Amino acid sequence: MEKSMEKIVALAKARGFVYPGSEIYGGLANTWDYGNLGVELKNNVKKAWWKKFIQENPYNVGVDCAILMNPQTWIASGHLGSFSDPLMDCKECHERFRADKIIEDYMNENGIEIEGSVDAWSNEEMASYIEEHNIVCPSCGKHNFTEIRQFNLMFKTFQGVTEDAKNTVYLRPETAQGIFVNFKNVQRTSRKKIPFGIGQIGKSFRNEITPGNFTFRTREFEQMELEFFCEPDTDLEWFEYWKNYCINWLKDLGMKEEEMRVRDHEQAELSFYSKATSDIEFLFPFGWGELWGIADRTDYDLTQHQNVSGEPMDYFDDEKKIKYVPYVIEPSLGADRVTLAFLCGAYDEEELEGGDTRTVLHFHPALAPVKIGVLPLSKKLSEGAEKVYAELSKYYNCEFDERGNIGKRYRRQDEIGTPFCITYDFESEEDGAVTVRDRDTMEQERIKISELKAYFEEKFNF
Amino acid sequence: MEKSMEKIVALAKARGFVYPGSEIYGGLANTWDYGNLGVELKNNVKKAWWKKFIQENPYNVGVDCAILMNPQTWIASGHLGSFSDPLMDCKECHERFRADKIIEDYMNENGIEIEGSVDAWSNEEMASYIEEHNIVCPSCGKHNFTEIRQFNLMFKTFQGVTEDAKNTVYLRPETAQGIFVNFKNVQRTSRKKIPFGIGQIGKSFRNEITPGNFTFRTREFEQMELEFFCEPDTDLEWFEYWKNYCINWLKDLGMKEEEMRVRDHEQAELSFYSKATSDIEFLFPFGWGELWGIADRTDYDLTQHQNVSGEPMDYFDDEKKIKYVPYVIEPSLGADRVTLAFLCGAYDEEELEGGDTRTVLHFHPALAPVKIGVLPLSKKLSEGAEKVYAELSKYYNCEFDERGNIGKRYRRQDEIGTPFCITYDFESEEDGAVTVRDRDTMEQERIKISELKAYFEEKFNF
Repeated sequence: MEKSMEKIVALAKARGFVYPGSEIYGGLANTWDYGNLGVELKNNVKKAWWKKFIQENPYNVGVDCAILMNPQTWIASGHLGSFSDPLMDCKECHERFRADKIIEDYMNENGIEIEGSVDAWSNEEMASYIEEHNIVCPSCGKHNFTEIRQFNLMFKTFQGVTEDAKNTVYLRPETAQGIFVNFKNVQRTSRKKIPFGIGQIGKSFRNEITPGNFTFRTREFEQMELEFFCEPDTDLEWFEYWKNYCINWLKDLGMKEEEMRVRDHEQAELSFYSKATSDIEFLFPFGWGELWGIADRTDYDLTQHQNVSGEPMDYFDDEKKIKYVPYVIEPSLGADRVTLAFLCGAYDEEELEGGDTRTVLHFHPALAPVKIGVLPLSKKLSEGAEKVYAELSKYYNCEFDERGNIGKRYRRQDEIGTPFCITYDFESEEDGAVTVRDRDTMEQERIKISELKAYFEEKFNF
Repeated sequence: MEKSMEKIVALAKARGFVYPGSEIYGGLANTWDYGNLGVELKNNVKKAWWKKFIQENPYNVGVDCAILMNPQTWIASGHLGSFSDPLMDCKECHERFRADKIIEDYMNENGIEIEGSVDAWSNEEMASYIEEHNIVCPSCGKHNFTEIRQFNLMFKTFQGVTEDAKNTVYLRPETAQGIFVNFKNVQRTSRKKIPFGIGQIGKSFRNEITPGNFTFRTREFEQMELEFFCEPDTDLEWFEYWKNYCINWLKDLGMKEEEMRVRDHEQAELSFYSKATSDIEFLFPFGWGELWGIADRTDYDLTQHQNVSGEPMDYFDDEKKIKYVPYVIEPSLGADRVTLAFLCGAYDEEELEGGDTRTVLHFHPALAPVKIGVLPLSKKLSEGAEKVYAELSKYYNCEFDERGNIGKRYRRQDEIGTPFCITYDFESEEDGAVTVRDRDTMEQERIKISELKAYFEEKFNF
């Protein structure tokens, strides 16, 4: 079985996971809408993150900050100064490109390896490399580019009536800064002592030049970020703690070891303020892609905000009687991206006895958008089956399906990853029991209706 | 006891419900950040909505659409043409005002009542009323205004590299349109038959001239909208169904009848396409404010999208063999607003025996940000109490507090609305039991630790 993005995009659209955004108007540059199943899947991913990173973890609390922030924030964070892509136009065909990407593509094609990454080069370094190697336009094949200029990736808008500099605000390019500016507020109101962390789930926006690969890279995306504050010199221990915590979260939700790898950044690749960074990558059908960046950001962010705002960002340890600006470990995960990874990982086409095949999504039960399909064997049995459906719907997202033969209905539930199907048959009216079928083993059990709640109690735990 | 916004804003900030946005930079025009308790409260409100409107309701499914949509959407919806406020400047002091608000304030002050609403007037009607009545600038007292012009309330930004008309996109001013453009997609993938509904929770943005009243009116806000599609001529029945459904949702979550009222719009007040509209209002400390708008929008939205996109938006009823563009009932609720209503409704200051007073938030247990406070009577008992905390944290958001005397710790939990406190005392080590205190009655019960899970099982249901 070959897993391809094509198949997954087609299934996603056909079954209500993800549709192209604004589709009736011809779409809008790689925007996507989550459909009736996609919204449940993504919500389950977010719930699973919140449960393990906030609710159950004794160190952490959550926040939910505004997308629009005072622009001083982006001066302090560096996003106004240096959050940009190097762009150039082809003078012949007027296409626009990222200079670093053109160079990287050239290197890949020609088997050239370098230390570090092209995106750390200056505009001049990139321009002269393109000149020296006579790199041509990927679109028209000519070699005639404009100079390279930096293009800021923040979306800009205007708050208030006039569209001038005074009213310019930006859509946040990351949720992290909302946490940093509230460090003192949250420390005060949660009465947490260091070490502790603050997590947030929310939308961010980056005006990427080349979004793509379905929901992997989009201009509007949702993040799940944790900023964990610790004492200087304990940071590398906590870095390991959170790296392992993230890996375990993915594994516990069914991600296969062979589809994951951890890439530790080399010294040359690190941001100047970072002591250590690791990426957890996932093997998408289009290749390895970054899923989770875990970074030791030292005291860089809090110090920047302290300097720009003039507000103290230090912490007083009243047992040790020492004062310091905390160090920060940041595990940063894209909600859309990891949802896509779980969708790709779950996808399978299985050959069944008798030569039939079925498409099945082997989601972890906690992630499955529909937990239980309730299927009356005949339309005559709808009334009894509907009672079962109504009762279970109080606890789980269930689906009621009475259309088509039972085999087809099982296939339909398999294809959307429903872990359990309940068949309500003619005997059910007599014996007060139903058949429960397991998605993965396809085995069936007879369970009393009155015992269904207890039966399912532990099935969807995470 | 007088409930005032001042007290509620102060409590919200002191206890981590809501902080001013970007506070260390002096804020940003009425933006707010939800703190460690606020995020839990608001998430619980959203969960309660999703549970009753999507999960348990047999008619409805959910979606989660992009904030950035193809601008054709806003042509069809009318937002590009007419979603605007009438503004004018004072030529003397250069302050800017909404003309309709100035007129309404003037009418209120002078006891003038009119039929309908000023915001339905044309610019010319407003200008001549201001002229005739010699209405003065609320800021400087002079009467010297510029002419009135319409100011569009959508936030505008640019997607892609150049800031020109071709790249102009808008932040959605409502989540509803993402549902309408996906009507056919969702109908196809969910295989729902009419009547059915599509719900969505998500951020919207309106460049309001006068945001205010804490989180009641903000430029960035979160909506919980349902678009319910039904057969023409059944719409008024469904309008009643959803109006009652909304009222019951609020009541079931503890909203008091005397703090709610339903205002049915009169014929003159209705949008030209609407057959009926009702507002559910809540008595905030600053007065009655709109919470939930329930509107019969007829086939207006789908027809508009059909006309502008050229894509059919009709539905074929294969039992009745009739084809029609469905009618829409829209119950639209602000998540921030109803969260604020629950916070205001829960607030109380109670006089206790002995003359003490306590501040208490009487949240419905399903909404309470912290479900259970775990309090060891002495620091020596931390180990045993931590085990109880860790076990219950798997199911509920709990707080562990060992600081201060037990009476103070109860007050602290009362003040954040924690429905239950568990006290782990010296006897607990012997008898394996703890004391459970009820927030509202302040009564205490002795419960076996091994039975706590079962004890709490039904307590937080909704």
